[in-house]
Amino acid sequence: MKDKLPSADRIRHAAKDLFATNGFHQTSMSELAAAADMSVGLIYRSFKSKAEIIEAIVHADFDEKIADLERIRQRLGTGEITIEKSIEELFLHAMRDSDEALSFDILAEGSRNERVGQTIGKMCERLRSYLRGFALAANPSLAGDQLEGAAELMLGCMFGLGHRRLAMPRLDASQTAEQSARMMVAALRAL
Amino acid sequence: MKDKLPSADRIRHAAKDLFATNGFHQTSMSELAAAADMSVGLIYRSFKSKAEIIEAIVHADFDEKIADLERIRQRLGTGEITIEKSIEELFLHAMRDSDEALSFDILAEGSRNERVGQTIGKMCERLRSYLRGFALAANPSLAGDQLEGAAELMLGCMFGLGHRRLAMPRLDASQTAEQSARMMVAALRAL
Repeated sequence: MKDKLPSADRIRHAAKDLFATNGFHQTSMSELAAAADMSVGLIYRSFKSKAEIIEAIVHADFDEKIADLERIRQRLGTGEITIEKSIEELFLHAMRDSDEALSFDILAEGSRNERVGQTIGKMCERLRSYLRGFALAANPSLAGDQLEGAAELMLGCMFGLGHRRLAMPRLDASQTAEQSARMMVAALRAL
Repeated sequence: MKDKLPSADRIRHAAKDLFATNGFHQTSMSELAAAADMSVGLIYRSFKSKAEIIEAIVHADFDEKIADLERIRQRLGTGEITIEKSIEELFLHAMRDSDEALSFDILAEGSRNERVGQTIGKMCERLRSYLRGFALAANPSLAGDQLEGAAELMLGCMFGLGHRRLAMPRLDASQTAEQSARMMVAALRAL
């Protein structure tokens, strides 16, 4: 199975495991080549630098997040779930991401490397367009800066709840998602 | 002035600058010694490892955050500011922290190094006790898991808004803090 993956994907998967365990800066191209079972030269044919591999990881991770949001949006659109349940699912998905160490490495790199930072920024803009849709489903009268501020707070909550492990939370993910969604819908309707 | 600081503080300040610019793992003890204008041996008399320096930075940073929260709590207690204004100040302070690259490095280290992780966890518990107080000021009927969930969401918001730079937000900090506080108070009162 693994051998049938195109080499760029194989490198990305191996890099994600190694970066998560050992850290982005503590992983060398030769260690990566060994883990991906290919030569360093072959890696350089797919990626010019470790930063480019990080960008590929960011793209793949956000594509998954967007696909999750799209599925929630569709279930809301058909009436299968309420807006409160949609936001609960959103927060649950955010808390499911478990590679926090890798996530912080990527964000640190994005804060120092402009290209990586731009990639993260563009992906967040894609998330925001979904969040505006959810905010409008809760309160159709939102517009302009108010709608933007609502999306901003929702994005902040997703990010904060999604990286809460180090804060040693006392409530489990499902309880947190359920109550946070209830609070967020009330907050959106109060605007 | 700088020369009068005890050596542990001098090391911590130099380390914070170097780690922020070059990254935690990309900074060597000898670079740190040069920046702090002392020998590597003298650094080891204050700190056994770079991780211990990170712990000292975490302690100092959280002590500042706690002092900010304490000042807000007192102003709320005397009636100088409303609960909405208090939460606005809280979010504004969270967004004022600008060393995001260093913050992500510290969090990555905390995710891999148990002692650093425990230090961060204990500090977050101190933040939570303040957040429970603010939640109760907005809605005195909160208790148990509901109060805990409220503190959890507020901590998530502080963290998320405080690390929003990479998400390329469109609203400025003061607009975001003002609207987020309004939303949070409505959310707390709806529970």
